[in-house]
Amino acid sequence: MLHERLNWRYATKKMDPARKVPEEKVAAILEAVQLAPTSSGLQPFEVFVVTNPEVRAKLRAAAYDQAQVTEGSHLLVFAAWDTYTEARIDAVVADIVAQRGAAAEAAVKGYYDQLKGSYVPRSAEENYQHAARQAYIAFGLALTAAAFEEVDATPMEGFDPAQVDEILGLKEKGLRSVTLLPLGYRAAEGDWLVGQKKVRRGLDRLVTKVA
Amino acid sequence: MLHERLNWRYATKKMDPARKVPEEKVAAILEAVQLAPTSSGLQPFEVFVVTNPEVRAKLRAAAYDQAQVTEGSHLLVFAAWDTYTEARIDAVVADIVAQRGAAAEAAVKGYYDQLKGSYVPRSAEENYQHAARQAYIAFGLALTAAAFEEVDATPMEGFDPAQVDEILGLKEKGLRSVTLLPLGYRAAEGDWLVGQKKVRRGLDRLVTKVA
Repeated sequence: MLHERLNWRYATKKMDPARKVPEEKVAAILEAVQLAPTSSGLQPFEVFVVTNPEVRAKLRAAAYDQAQVTEGSHLLVFAAWDTYTEARIDAVVADIVAQRGAAAEAAVKGYYDQLKGSYVPRSAEENYQHAARQAYIAFGLALTAAAFEEVDATPMEGFDPAQVDEILGLKEKGLRSVTLLPLGYRAAEGDWLVGQKKVRRGLDRLVTKVA
Repeated sequence: MLHERLNWRYATKKMDPARKVPEEKVAAILEAVQLAPTSSGLQPFEVFVVTNPEVRAKLRAAAYDQAQVTEGSHLLVFAAWDTYTEARIDAVVADIVAQRGAAAEAAVKGYYDQLKGSYVPRSAEENYQHAARQAYIAFGLALTAAAFEEVDATPMEGFDPAQVDEILGLKEKGLRSVTLLPLGYRAAEGDWLVGQKKVRRGLDRLVTKVA
């Protein structure tokens, strides 16, 4: 089932602007993002769901005019924390306590205190790079969830992050844009990639067994 | 279905060393890795499947003695390319031509020539960081595929990459270790995490709508 969906999906090049992804499908994709595993459960990112036409037009310009940004019906922007702070890690512990009960605090406090001791003094750049990697796990799950919802999506790294940060006011929120993911429906007749065989490196060159 | 599997999985803390993951399930997990989308289809990583007991014992020591490394039956090691080279990108184009036919070359050659022009002169560190992010997409799909196969898995970043690289001879292969993923079956009676509620940040703090 998973493989069938992964084989179905492709990086959609042309979307049909007349077709809108239903909100319940967008919600299901966002729930997969929420369920994505991350290092120490930090979930060090946020996701922006942009439907506003003016904002999407600006983002399209910042994404080298890739048409899916405005021709899809929703644009997800994945933005990673710009660094780890005491307050951000404390909020994770507070969530654990709120969801598992006060007794859980003793079980995890030492671990997260240690994490703060190791992460907070590091450079913001090192912390951002680590946070961005976690965002990629969630990004992969969003792509996968879209395929399960029969929604087309185009994973994008090709954009100017400084411009995207500026358009969405991410810097003030302590975030840095990492990836874009337009959601929509393929306009198959205009998409050069739609009929092409999916190309992947052979397992013999991807996997090495150490037995 | 996807959400049900994502809710089932958890970062297994204690695995039953007596239970072995069947090879066909490991193969299904590796196929999901192979199908993972990556930037420009580069798949800039390799996966090592370690079953050898001596090698896993060494890797466990390099992973701060986390028991799942040897108590699972298979250990996946995700290793990213240490940089982008002309030869590596040429091999991707060769795969496209081999799988889509010679006519495909004209359609993609310009794109990959441009990519070489932009990636090859960059620092190895910048290229490695980009490659590692792609490995995280595949890592997330491996976790997801394991859940579909009802195989337990423990995503791990807590290890000494220099030691892991040394143990597996990755440097000579132009690779750098990124993540570990032991596969096995939970030993539920010994796992403090197994019965705990999965904690995730609320969607109200994870998602912002720009409508």
